[in-house]
Amino acid sequence: MAVHEPLAQNETMTELEQKSEREQVEGLTMIVFSGDLDKVLAAFIIANGAAAMDMPVTMFFTFWGLNALRRSEPVKVKKGLIEAMFGWMMPRGADKLTLSKMNMAGLGTAMMKQVMAKKNVYSLPKLIQSAQQLGVRLVACSMSMDVMGIAPQELIDGVEIGGVATFLDSADRSRSTLSI
Amino acid sequence: MAVHEPLAQNETMTELEQKSEREQVEGLTMIVFSGDLDKVLAAFIIANGAAAMDMPVTMFFTFWGLNALRRSEPVKVKKGLIEAMFGWMMPRGADKLTLSKMNMAGLGTAMMKQVMAKKNVYSLPKLIQSAQQLGVRLVACSMSMDVMGIAPQELIDGVEIGGVATFLDSADRSRSTLSI
Amino acid sequence: MAVHEPLAQNETMTELEQKSEREQVEGLTMIVFSGDLDKVLAAFIIANGAAAMDMPVTMFFTFWGLNALRRSEPVKVKKGLIEAMFGWMMPRGADKLTLSKMNMAGLGTAMMKQVMAKKNVYSLPKLIQSAQQLGVRLVACSMSMDVMGIAPQELIDGVEIGGVATFLDSADRSRSTLSI
Repeated sequence: MAVHEPLAQNETMTELEQKSEREQVEGLTMIVFSGDLDKVLAAFIIANGAAAMDMPVTMFFTFWGLNALRRSEPVKVKKGLIEAMFGWMMPRGADKLTLSKMNMAGLGTAMMKQVMAKKNVYSLPKLIQSAQQLGVRLVACSMSMDVMGIAPQELIDGVEIGGVATFLDSADRSRSTLSI
Repeated sequence: MAVHEPLAQNETMTELEQKSEREQVEGLTMIVFSGDLDKVLAAFIIANGAAAMDMPVTMFFTFWGLNALRRSEPVKVKKGLIEAMFGWMMPRGADKLTLSKMNMAGLGTAMMKQVMAKKNVYSLPKLIQSAQQLGVRLVACSMSMDVMGIAPQELIDGVEIGGVATFLDSADRSRSTLSI
Repeated sequence: MAVHEPLAQNETMTELEQKSEREQVEGLTMIVFSGDLDKVLAAFIIANGAAAMDMPVTMFFTFWGLNALRRSEPVKVKKGLIEAMFGWMMPRGADKLTLSKMNMAGLGTAMMKQVMAKKNVYSLPKLIQSAQQLGVRLVACSMSMDVMGIAPQELIDGVEIGGVATFLDSADRSRSTLSI
């Protein structure tokens, strides 16, 4: 009996701990797969809103989504031919992204940016900055970086690098998961 | 003691209320970002299915997704030049949406509609009507409406207008969240 | 009393069962709507990662996503004209999918496959095989199969066929739901 009572206590504590862990399921995890301006804008508008409502937010950038996190200034990195081509062909940074529809050789994108400024909606670079200030966690997918030949120093400051397990762990603790 | 007992009771009630609130996490919240016929069809087929299974469903329409909620008949609204251009270039209503792939200048879309009719799948306008009858909540994103220059009277009846907070609040009470 | 006691016991058991059922909310359900190589790759990389972390994973393939599950060898099936045209125009199987961006008449897709092989990332057919071995449940949407005229024997082995209710039931038991 003397042996079992502490065990029983331990079990109760474990149950409580489990319960409290279960209650920590909250907030939002997003996969940002797309590098289209409209989709990345939507992702950051949601992220800023959620962070302002005190929800923990994690954004996981993979494939074309990585382009939103690239520095706008060129960074010297030694690359193979295919990686260099990918890097050269893909938009470098949030300010270079274009609309998924009605881009019209850049005219539609310029119109969208102009109307957003007129309506006092933050530009994408400002939304990213604001998200970082509000504590939104930005994670760049390590496998995508490897495949696309993007080096850590080519990304903006404050970006974490993580793998699929990082995403899954975050998704599993979040109330909502979105793929943009 | 006389002071604390009611307090303790209140606390217990609050706990119960919290528990019951936590158990109310159910149903489905969808972001409809796309205005492609195939994607909007998928969203409404899921919404109708979930509503038929008595799940609460909220659909939040943003960016190109708003086009699915536009009235098919033109509505006189005074607009700036860019807003007028957006309104003129984007498809007006559910019946005007086209496929994301194999549209082939409308031929693929017409083929898809024909084969759906042959297989007794509801058309998109019918799926929207059915969703509304089953109690699916349709919310149009106020910020997107502002940016794209779409006025409330240009949307079909029964559509609520809400912001990111409306979406996040709904997502936080839903078991599943999807972005289409 | 003798009548009620067993009833009360039953109720308690039901409550426990409900509780245990509620705690079984775990793992991941994905809608694979897209047939783009990059998106299907992302879906299967996530699925393999989750399955390796012992999460139950269900993937529900609808619309263009079905193409990832088609057998690469042609299968004789009697079809109507439109179904035959859809079947002929859509990519037949995981090895035929192309990138959503920078496909460049197949050059970009070939480059992506080459760089993935160099970086030791599994090809899509291998990722599918691995997912199946790890117990990932692959479900083909029956309504999409009907509309697109894809017969069960045209799909790879080990694929379940199910409707929207199958997806919703799985989503409702999952911690995270993604639409790719």
